[in-house]
Amino acid sequence: MLAVRLEDGKVRVVDERRPPRPAGFALIRLLYGGICNTDLELQRGYYGFRGTPGHEFVGEVVEADSAGWIGHRVVGEINLACQKCEWCRRGLGRHCPHRRVLGIVKHPGAFREFLTLPERNLHRVPPEIPTLHAVFAEPLAAACEILDQVQISEGAAVAVLGDGKLGLLVAQVLNAHLYGHHKDKLQIAKKAGVDARIARKLPVARYDYVVDATGSSEGLRQAVQMTKPRGTVILKSTVHDKVAIDTAPVIVNEITLIGSRCGRFEPALELLREGRVGVDDLISEILPLSKAPLAFRRAAQAGALKILLEPG
Amino acid sequence: MLAVRLEDGKVRVVDERRPPRPAGFALIRLLYGGICNTDLELQRGYYGFRGTPGHEFVGEVVEADSAGWIGHRVVGEINLACQKCEWCRRGLGRHCPHRRVLGIVKHPGAFREFLTLPERNLHRVPPEIPTLHAVFAEPLAAACEILDQVQISEGAAVAVLGDGKLGLLVAQVLNAHLYGHHKDKLQIAKKAGVDARIARKLPVARYDYVVDATGSSEGLRQAVQMTKPRGTVILKSTVHDKVAIDTAPVIVNEITLIGSRCGRFEPALELLREGRVGVDDLISEILPLSKAPLAFRRAAQAGALKILLEPG
Repeated sequence: MLAVRLEDGKVRVVDERRPPRPAGFALIRLLYGGICNTDLELQRGYYGFRGTPGHEFVGEVVEADSAGWIGHRVVGEINLACQKCEWCRRGLGRHCPHRRVLGIVKHPGAFREFLTLPERNLHRVPPEIPTLHAVFAEPLAAACEILDQVQISEGAAVAVLGDGKLGLLVAQVLNAHLYGHHKDKLQIAKKAGVDARIARKLPVARYDYVVDATGSSEGLRQAVQMTKPRGTVILKSTVHDKVAIDTAPVIVNEITLIGSRCGRFEPALELLREGRVGVDDLISEILPLSKAPLAFRRAAQAGALKILLEPG
Repeated sequence: MLAVRLEDGKVRVVDERRPPRPAGFALIRLLYGGICNTDLELQRGYYGFRGTPGHEFVGEVVEADSAGWIGHRVVGEINLACQKCEWCRRGLGRHCPHRRVLGIVKHPGAFREFLTLPERNLHRVPPEIPTLHAVFAEPLAAACEILDQVQISEGAAVAVLGDGKLGLLVAQVLNAHLYGHHKDKLQIAKKAGVDARIARKLPVARYDYVVDATGSSEGLRQAVQMTKPRGTVILKSTVHDKVAIDTAPVIVNEITLIGSRCGRFEPALELLREGRVGVDDLISEILPLSKAPLAFRRAAQAGALKILLEPG
């Protein structure tokens, strides 16, 4: 089967054997995989990664312990938790210190024709959701995670900074004002009903909640500046350089900063099922696995939104 | 009367007229003032400050609109709020955007023989509290502010990083493990019943709450490292350089960072009244206002704890 491999900054496509299916795991045929900024960071060598990336996917189960899964479309939680530690007992396997992570830590990812995941990680895709939408379940779950972390009261002023893929999803989920630099992306947001604004002169101390989805080291500083005293900044994008922040306004204005990562899939699937989050316009291009090197280059281009991979 | 003045990095003592007492204000005779790190920062020119510093004080009211204040020992909230804005209406005058701040922003401070403050800012010092303890009401209120911001559940693991004045108060208030570099200060903490430890090899992901009271740019990084996933870091000390932080562990571990500043005086006075926080050992030296230049030098020395000023 075809599989994408990252090694020393290069994207290669290799032909390899189907992975064996351990007990408790499902063997899944890839339908679509989505390239995320994290994949581009893995390519650049963060976390010393080598292997098959990919953690955004929708697939079809071809083998499993439980016959009930077979033939169904699934998406999957990316953290393979130990099921034994305090975190797992609390239902927070996403923070299990022994976790492996699909396509990121010690478990080969979804950018191959067949992948494996524990059955307990799987979620059946409801029939109302088109396959092409289902591949957004993982990033949309990450957007929904914010709602699990903070209680946003009705009437609160909420802004999202950054009009990339994640920013466009978060702005829809939170019904927030979106500030970005790209007219075409802001247009997509507007079409989805979002109040989208060019990030020229950013307001000061206007919002109760600001989500930094810029992916830039400047984003956090701007987000703090836009937040009211006692307000909350949600850090949604990793920046792989150290970020220099002035802690004085954080302390003087008693601002809360919250790191936010993966989320539960249930609310994301529900939003997709109800068609309440628009994802069609977020797809820039669909390329076959065999063209993964091109797909990674495209995903890294300024202005690109979601690049999807499909088998073949 | 004698008054301390900061100007161009210098500490001077000047003889000036008693300040006029505006309507609604009390005229207060200084009993003790405490030098805080913020005062040292004002001396170094932060906020472009020139004038009389001092926001930690205990005094005796000599003139006021309400006769009931006269002759009583008082401490005072340092924020002079507008009483009209949304923040003031919510009882959060500490965040009033129009506020003046005693000895910091547009209102001369307490390091002079007589000072003025609005009567509504005053708190009577209960008779059980020695005058020398009452001067700690303001920094202790700042320590107690943490309890107004986060709900620390029983059995939570709590650590304070930094064994300076504020760290010693916070560790007592939170009944936390204290990590510091100074044997003598850790000894003071132990005498007050605190589990105090040399900050040699700091534990990783062990605490639910970590308070950074180091005043160093390294403190925040260490605090994040000591915090469990989904735990909380409280930023209690300003560092006046930008702090370079790696946001990746904050996001991956979904850690919350909370800036924390001034607090309500009521819980602080209650702790002092009950003698539940030891402050005697935190006093390094008491010097007269006339020796303010020496007092500021002493306060800036490594190892110094609280330097107090008294009239004369």
